Amino acid sequence: MLICSSLDEMKRREAAFRFIATVMNQEGRSSLYDLSGLAGGFPVKKSDLNLLETYSGPAIFSSNLQKVGTRHLGGDKVAAFNRTSAAILATILALVKPGEEVIHYLPELPSHPSIPRSAKLQGASYREFDNLQDFQLAEKTSLVVITGSTMDHQVLSLNDFQSIIQISQENQVPVMVDDASGARIRTVIYNQPRAMDMGADLVVTSTDKLMDGPRAGLMAGKSSLIDRIQDKAHQFGLEAQPPIVAGIVRALENFKPQRILDSLERRDKLHKKVGNVLEGVEKTPTGFMITAANLEKEINPDGNENLTKRELATLMAMVLLKEYHLVTIPAVGMPGVSDTIRLDLSSNDAERVDDTQIIQAMKESLELVRELIPDEEASLSVLYE
Amino acid sequence: MLICSSLDEMKRREAAFRFIATVMNQEGRSSLYDLSGLAGGFPVKKSDLNLLETYSGPAIFSSNLQKVGTRHLGGDKVAAFNRTSAAILATILALVKPGEEVIHYLPELPSHPSIPRSAKLQGASYREFDNLQDFQLAEKTSLVVITGSTMDHQVLSLNDFQSIIQISQENQVPVMVDDASGARIRTVIYNQPRAMDMGADLVVTSTDKLMDGPRAGLMAGKSSLIDRIQDKAHQFGLEAQPPIVAGIVRALENFKPQRILDSLERRDKLHKKVGNVLEGVEKTPTGFMITAANLEKEINPDGNENLTKRELATLMAMVLLKEYHLVTIPAVGMPGVSDTIRLDLSSNDAERVDDTQIIQAMKESLELVRELIPDEEASLSVLYE
Repeated sequence: MLICSSLDEMKRREAAFRFIATVMNQEGRSSLYDLSGLAGGFPVKKSDLNLLETYSGPAIFSSNLQKVGTRHLGGDKVAAFNRTSAAILATILALVKPGEEVIHYLPELPSHPSIPRSAKLQGASYREFDNLQDFQLAEKTSLVVITGSTMDHQVLSLNDFQSIIQISQENQVPVMVDDASGARIRTVIYNQPRAMDMGADLVVTSTDKLMDGPRAGLMAGKSSLIDRIQDKAHQFGLEAQPPIVAGIVRALENFKPQRILDSLERRDKLHKKVGNVLEGVEKTPTGFMITAANLEKEINPDGNENLTKRELATLMAMVLLKEYHLVTIPAVGMPGVSDTIRLDLSSNDAERVDDTQIIQAMKESLELVRELIPDEEASLSVLYE
Repeated sequence: MLICSSLDEMKRREAAFRFIATVMNQEGRSSLYDLSGLAGGFPVKKSDLNLLETYSGPAIFSSNLQKVGTRHLGGDKVAAFNRTSAAILATILALVKPGEEVIHYLPELPSHPSIPRSAKLQGASYREFDNLQDFQLAEKTSLVVITGSTMDHQVLSLNDFQSIIQISQENQVPVMVDDASGARIRTVIYNQPRAMDMGADLVVTSTDKLMDGPRAGLMAGKSSLIDRIQDKAHQFGLEAQPPIVAGIVRALENFKPQRILDSLERRDKLHKKVGNVLEGVEKTPTGFMITAANLEKEINPDGNENLTKRELATLMAMVLLKEYHLVTIPAVGMPGVSDTIRLDLSSNDAERVDDTQIIQAMKESLELVRELIPDEEASLSVLYE
């Protein structure tokens, strides 16, 4: 037994952080490759920090946000929120009255919980559809939400998109598009128009998804609607704060659609090559993963070893970190975190590590884990020292 | 007429920003004195930026937040929110059911709107009191809120504080203390105990008030309550994001109670001295101010000049900025902003400017404004160039 409790997992996490801190201090940030896909970006410049300490700094970033935000999303005006969920709450509070209805069309049921939850809080009813035949507005419908692309990167067809917008416009009900990842997936990968260019009244996107910004929600739309929503946001403390706005501005300035296209192409190629080394490797929307169960099959097909699959996956993740400086979730996550090893190729750091390095890291780590298994003392030292 | 429209005010603001950017580029941040009191602090270190770009960075700052947060506020556990208003919303959503009641005791009516507004959104009733005789819990009361200190820095008496906590405890209703500025004013200036040490279940403070942190809410309390509130916060996107958490951690590390005491003493001294130069100057909780009306009386007691009091105050603020590098709101604020010139001595930058400089700046700016008044061309250039 290598991992006996959540206390042990906490110790493993602390060991990973100690290792990361040492690498950063001794060799610099550039010798670390965070492919967790959950880092979030905060690409403010060192010189921005001084500006952020003045009253005028935020104002300057807010003006720039209008420029780069409307360039990215279209619309007359943008507003930044603490999270996409916070933007959705503010929108429903601003545009929907208690007793009215929110209806939601998405590529596949069910919805992200933030939409029904916000409707419920406001005392509004809620219906959701993934089928054009069933979709129908009611007398009391005061907001139509369209999800452009789901968390699994399923994308709404252009035909459905346009039909929903047309029906809503005929009924004079505003349409908000939840384009959390869609604002990039739909446009960059599927060549669809931006939501605002298809006639949406509002669109919101997550600035940490397929772009290198902080976790936050950026909304664009018609000025009069944005003003009302922003007012509600300020009332309940939902707006993004100045440092986050600065991070969004810098991330939008750095945004390169080509990087997404490159990462997909790279994923397909890498998935095949890593598959030669590790049979159970699977594609994800922006990279690849190996579940602990598949890893166990690979390492120990007969399943008669002493180690659990979580222990194997954690060992593998810690070896990837310590030997190859690849940061993945099973190494740095909280106790009870997923034991699937994911490598996200749309991560900012993915640019700095090449395919050969990744394949070699996967292959050699697998061998190292096999060697470690019989040696409890060495395994414990990899996990906890 | 110097200022004819909000477009003109926008041009004035842009001119102020251009000037500030030039000063920062040519002479560095240290030659600028932002005494607006609204800058908010973001004292993350340049080396923190690298860490913020990794998954582990936020985790490390979150652990540190527990340490410095509980040291500042007491309690078992802390959580950071995007704003104090967001923390209050999350608390009411977590602890109060529709149909139940929130009651609020504060030094002076009326309440900050965030509390009744959040109760209303949750479908809970709300009552507020500033008088111990009238205060009475109802059967349906499920949360008691105490405001420790108002926006005008009125402080609740220790006796009232203790009585409300005792009544609430007897009725087994949890108490949340809204100690936005109170967590520092009450403890540092009035020597009152921390809210948690008086038996509160929860306390929330604003990390930009009387300390040099970003605008955000920091809540401390019993672990089980904090966990429930944090869960609600994540549902609606109310939690502080990692860069803000880093800013809070650094600000709490830097926090020195003595600076508040020094700024009050300094305010009293300066208020007297500036009063000799500018008769209508008034004390504020953390500095002093001159309203546009009082400035007009000083410059032009007969009120028969061509300039409005807003034009005079804006000219004065722009002269303070351009000649003395003092940033105040009428120079950098949005169109329609308050035309009162406030100097906040609890601002971070106040440490770097001495009393003689401030008095000289006020005195000489006043003289310069008097000289500018007859010269429209020169005045326009001060405002817009």
